[in-house]
Amino acid sequence: MRTMKAAVFVGPGKIILDEKPIPQVGPGDALVKITTTTICGTDVHILKGEYPVEAGRIVGHEPVGVIAELGPGVTGYSIGQRVVIGAITPCGQCNACLDHHQAQCGGKALGGWRFGNTIDGCQAEYVKVPFAMANLTPVPDGLTDEQVLMCPDIMSTGFGGAESGQIKIGDTVAIFAQGPIGLCATAGARLKGASQIIVVDTVPARLEMARRLGADAVIDYKQADPVSEIMKLTGGQGADVAIESLGTQQTFESCLRSLKPGGTLSSLGVYSGKLSLPLDAFAAGLGDHKIVTTLCPGGKERMRRLMNVVASGRVSLEPLVTHRFKLDQIEEAYELFANQRDGVLKVAITP
Amino acid sequence: MRTMKAAVFVGPGKIILDEKPIPQVGPGDALVKITTTTICGTDVHILKGEYPVEAGRIVGHEPVGVIAELGPGVTGYSIGQRVVIGAITPCGQCNACLDHHQAQCGGKALGGWRFGNTIDGCQAEYVKVPFAMANLTPVPDGLTDEQVLMCPDIMSTGFGGAESGQIKIGDTVAIFAQGPIGLCATAGARLKGASQIIVVDTVPARLEMARRLGADAVIDYKQADPVSEIMKLTGGQGADVAIESLGTQQTFESCLRSLKPGGTLSSLGVYSGKLSLPLDAFAAGLGDHKIVTTLCPGGKERMRRLMNVVASGRVSLEPLVTHRFKLDQIEEAYELFANQRDGVLKVAITP
Amino acid sequence: MRTMKAAVFVGPGKIILDEKPIPQVGPGDALVKITTTTICGTDVHILKGEYPVEAGRIVGHEPVGVIAELGPGVTGYSIGQRVVIGAITPCGQCNACLDHHQAQCGGKALGGWRFGNTIDGCQAEYVKVPFAMANLTPVPDGLTDEQVLMCPDIMSTGFGGAESGQIKIGDTVAIFAQGPIGLCATAGARLKGASQIIVVDTVPARLEMARRLGADAVIDYKQADPVSEIMKLTGGQGADVAIESLGTQQTFESCLRSLKPGGTLSSLGVYSGKLSLPLDAFAAGLGDHKIVTTLCPGGKERMRRLMNVVASGRVSLEPLVTHRFKLDQIEEAYELFANQRDGVLKVAITP
Amino acid sequence: MRTMKAAVFVGPGKIILDEKPIPQVGPGDALVKITTTTICGTDVHILKGEYPVEAGRIVGHEPVGVIAELGPGVTGYSIGQRVVIGAITPCGQCNACLDHHQAQCGGKALGGWRFGNTIDGCQAEYVKVPFAMANLTPVPDGLTDEQVLMCPDIMSTGFGGAESGQIKIGDTVAIFAQGPIGLCATAGARLKGASQIIVVDTVPARLEMARRLGADAVIDYKQADPVSEIMKLTGGQGADVAIESLGTQQTFESCLRSLKPGGTLSSLGVYSGKLSLPLDAFAAGLGDHKIVTTLCPGGKERMRRLMNVVASGRVSLEPLVTHRFKLDQIEEAYELFANQRDGVLKVAITP
Repeated sequence: MRTMKAAVFVGPGKIILDEKPIPQVGPGDALVKITTTTICGTDVHILKGEYPVEAGRIVGHEPVGVIAELGPGVTGYSIGQRVVIGAITPCGQCNACLDHHQAQCGGKALGGWRFGNTIDGCQAEYVKVPFAMANLTPVPDGLTDEQVLMCPDIMSTGFGGAESGQIKIGDTVAIFAQGPIGLCATAGARLKGASQIIVVDTVPARLEMARRLGADAVIDYKQADPVSEIMKLTGGQGADVAIESLGTQQTFESCLRSLKPGGTLSSLGVYSGKLSLPLDAFAAGLGDHKIVTTLCPGGKERMRRLMNVVASGRVSLEPLVTHRFKLDQIEEAYELFANQRDGVLKVAITP
Repeated sequence: MRTMKAAVFVGPGKIILDEKPIPQVGPGDALVKITTTTICGTDVHILKGEYPVEAGRIVGHEPVGVIAELGPGVTGYSIGQRVVIGAITPCGQCNACLDHHQAQCGGKALGGWRFGNTIDGCQAEYVKVPFAMANLTPVPDGLTDEQVLMCPDIMSTGFGGAESGQIKIGDTVAIFAQGPIGLCATAGARLKGASQIIVVDTVPARLEMARRLGADAVIDYKQADPVSEIMKLTGGQGADVAIESLGTQQTFESCLRSLKPGGTLSSLGVYSGKLSLPLDAFAAGLGDHKIVTTLCPGGKERMRRLMNVVASGRVSLEPLVTHRFKLDQIEEAYELFANQRDGVLKVAITP
Repeated sequence: MRTMKAAVFVGPGKIILDEKPIPQVGPGDALVKITTTTICGTDVHILKGEYPVEAGRIVGHEPVGVIAELGPGVTGYSIGQRVVIGAITPCGQCNACLDHHQAQCGGKALGGWRFGNTIDGCQAEYVKVPFAMANLTPVPDGLTDEQVLMCPDIMSTGFGGAESGQIKIGDTVAIFAQGPIGLCATAGARLKGASQIIVVDTVPARLEMARRLGADAVIDYKQADPVSEIMKLTGGQGADVAIESLGTQQTFESCLRSLKPGGTLSSLGVYSGKLSLPLDAFAAGLGDHKIVTTLCPGGKERMRRLMNVVASGRVSLEPLVTHRFKLDQIEEAYELFANQRDGVLKVAITP
Repeated sequence: MRTMKAAVFVGPGKIILDEKPIPQVGPGDALVKITTTTICGTDVHILKGEYPVEAGRIVGHEPVGVIAELGPGVTGYSIGQRVVIGAITPCGQCNACLDHHQAQCGGKALGGWRFGNTIDGCQAEYVKVPFAMANLTPVPDGLTDEQVLMCPDIMSTGFGGAESGQIKIGDTVAIFAQGPIGLCATAGARLKGASQIIVVDTVPARLEMARRLGADAVIDYKQADPVSEIMKLTGGQGADVAIESLGTQQTFESCLRSLKPGGTLSSLGVYSGKLSLPLDAFAAGLGDHKIVTTLCPGGKERMRRLMNVVASGRVSLEPLVTHRFKLDQIEEAYELFANQRDGVLKVAITP
């Protein structure tokens, strides 16, 4: 049995580089040789034992690679073709998928999130892609791996937050937290035509990157109260749309308090514990606020549109790659990324 | 100065029948002689001092009447014409109104709710209607006052909950609480094409009325756990849409737990205290749930559509009128309604 | 090689009963034994040579049956299960499907319409269903074949017309032509909450059936001018939504002329020749009219929702079955249906 | 009676500078002293006698100015304030406005278009603004007249075409004709996140300006067939959205033929004569194409959002002003603009 190197979750606090069998493809599957992948905040949740993943699971859900093998019935692709695959791998054929809830594939909450969760992921030499026909997206010639590395997850999620928020041309958008996903939400808000984008964080490098990706105003929450700053910047009106991309009670509540009456809160963060809705901000339960949540939509059509954006040069996300590692150094990469050292935003992992 | 009888909030626990001046109309106003009005749950919140209304305010926001006087500039109407006016009276001309957030008229949360809140209301012999051109809706001949009495508030709110939930043909909808608004949500869900409507309450008369208005299944929450019943009735899938129409932590949480992954919670209740979002039900902050809130949309166009529904006989809400009082007996009416005695659903108040 | 009986298009004017091999299932396919099917207006277009179908093709795209065989990889179903399959059989996995244009599966206009068009259809003893996982919808116990026989096409198309028209509660809807699809549009408009449904046809039995399915007013276009009647019935305002379900220049133009300024024309008909848009009715090319077209959406999720409607008893379409034939008599059935004799609406064909 | 200079339509082929009374304001009106205005293609239709406007009417519907007088009941504004007003001046209070069809104000097709059509317009020293509360939009300090001169009409219309087309991030958009409105549609498509914008025209200066405003590819229709070029540029798929901004049979038809199956045609042009829909392109009347038309939406909220875009620097439309005239020279300006001489795009007219 041929084996490969892979990052494996073995228990809380422990993701190690290990030797695992190269997956066997079945009908509808594809085997993809990973050329570049990265680590997500969710992987850190897994590492810390905060998200239920079984021991022995290969982690990682952001694959860029080359088709190595195609299972029976997979047509329209060829060996050697460069592809990306979304973090979410919908089957396309269940009721949830056909009803456009691809993240809930199979009718299960988060059912479409398989890589590094319910099946082996892509921080490895190879990954087996289920429902390949619905999920393999060719990479146009001339785009590098790092250019498209954010498509599978953070670009899809961040842009999804801007899309779910139904930002209109000329809107004011407030975005709380400028980690990788928040930064993508900033770029997405810009792309959707927001004319005033206000972001909140405290790390100088992130605020700087936010400006580069489209923020008009940045608020360092250690220097000033974000809600009153946003009110000041909007002439007391509040934001049309607020995007939460951290996952804390405080940012969620600040989002609500920053909104204009009738505004939309687009929630991307992963919360721990219960979330408490402040009802005064929520207009005493009355009003016509909306709260929408988004889980990075997948499927090859979505990846195709995101890649169009990259190819057009409208948005450039390579600068988010601040550090590079070999797969052999994956434990070191986790150590850096989990501790948010050295201004890390995203790491690139290559074989 | 001519005077009239009116129900006046004088302090927590005290709404009394008093003598007040008949309002003077200014430009854009209309004076409407009330022929029938009713009491809303919100009025009871005011009565109990739970909602900030200044002492001396005439309460009531559900007017049916006859035009008695038209202020300068009001055209297209005539004295003696029968009209209803929505509980929300948008100006139509501010940024919020022009942006289709009529409940937030003037850019203020609940800004469009004026009657019995920021201006005098309609539990009186006369009411002055601001922005009359945007708010007076003629009542078609042949419809009685009681037939259209629910249009101004509970029908607009309840139907609004069904509309905001974006119910599709063939959907399953769960509705928590079958007070007047919940019952209207049931009728609205039926009108929108839901094919399985499951309602939750415990009062037999309400469950019975729910069946009459379109419920397919009723759950008495004292007999069975609503969430597990809903799961059973949906083959374990959960509801496509859940409508909350009570305003408690428990019903809100049960709504979330009754939803299918990716479902929509349409919230109509008025909550007291903070609301705690159970994050497991909310898919750990991930997923693509939506939470939308609705405040009974107003304006004459909306009233016109609701009246079309009444006139067509599609929905008949007169049975909700369980008790009738004269304006002179308004204190007695409050006593009955606030204590939910004698199976009261809605009362009709006539001069 | 086992053979079966099937209705085969052999050339313009000629659909005959013939002997054909029973299809072989491959990966992802299912073989369904047809228990009931029917003939569609589109089949008559094929019969007349007006739609390009190759000689030798088995026609028919409205299957109700029993699973006889499942190809490799098809899970979640069992032999002997009763199913319906939509006329459109999307793969669920191509870009068009993932982008919610299932009728354009494969990125081709009408690409998703395969049965009796690009692959063999279901007016036969057996039909091979491609992409079975996305297309087989179980029939709930207790529903007869005739109850669900309209789901695959005319119910999906007619309801789709009502859905695409974005009918709102309290709207006025005008529907031109009350053939099987127009009748389903009438039922769909009713389900969506229209409060005034005006239909146009001239055949008494169809106008009668329209009333039964929800029409409030019927216009016999031989007795009165539909456009001026609709204007009269709407107080000169015009309809909010007009649905075209015949496919002629005259009905299309009348739809446009019946609309209120800013209304929506939902087009279901299949037109021959060029269609001429009268620009005065189209507000001189200005205005904010919408024209939307719908091709009966398929996929098992849609079928599931339609079946929910049937199972709930909200709508009953069995009365549309006016004649019954054995498969052996299919040529006779075509003769009756193509000539619209004897008040035929839909025929049921059984083995 | 004080008089003013104004451009007056006196008959086909004749718009002259004349002396007219300065308008008197009534309740709800405002008098605005024009500081800059411009000429629209529609004015040329009027000049040629192609659009029914009564003799004696002051033309022009794109006002930038200063409030000179406020009628009774107009609050929230002050004399001397700089404002723009949309070409469409909705009342905000009729059923059409409350139903978000502001262009059809009063329930009449184009009812909201009053300036230079049913009431006197703004190619004059002063203009009377009806429904001032719904229509006066303050101009932020620091923006010049020419920066906001396109807001009232072409920016609203062109952006409206991009919005009605429901362009998604990563979409391909084809825009036919790059006159002033088409150029604004190009800028609008860019703002909405289209990643491939293909424009068609033949005038080099327009194609050049299109590139400057966001076009990725330009097609000179005298050099190459636009439809086949668009197919080539989209890998044979067709555009997701096509925007028609000329108003001819040929561009309309080419739009349809350039679309992908299931795409949207957003129509902005003003057509003369009947329009013939090619049904093969329209998928034989089947398919799920959409055709939407937009008339430049008005109202102060819309102007506010457009001005936000200008103020943010996201889009700069001053370069469209190619020529400048004094009001005294208005006949000369018409002569130049109507004949499209000297590379004229838009003219600025000042007192």
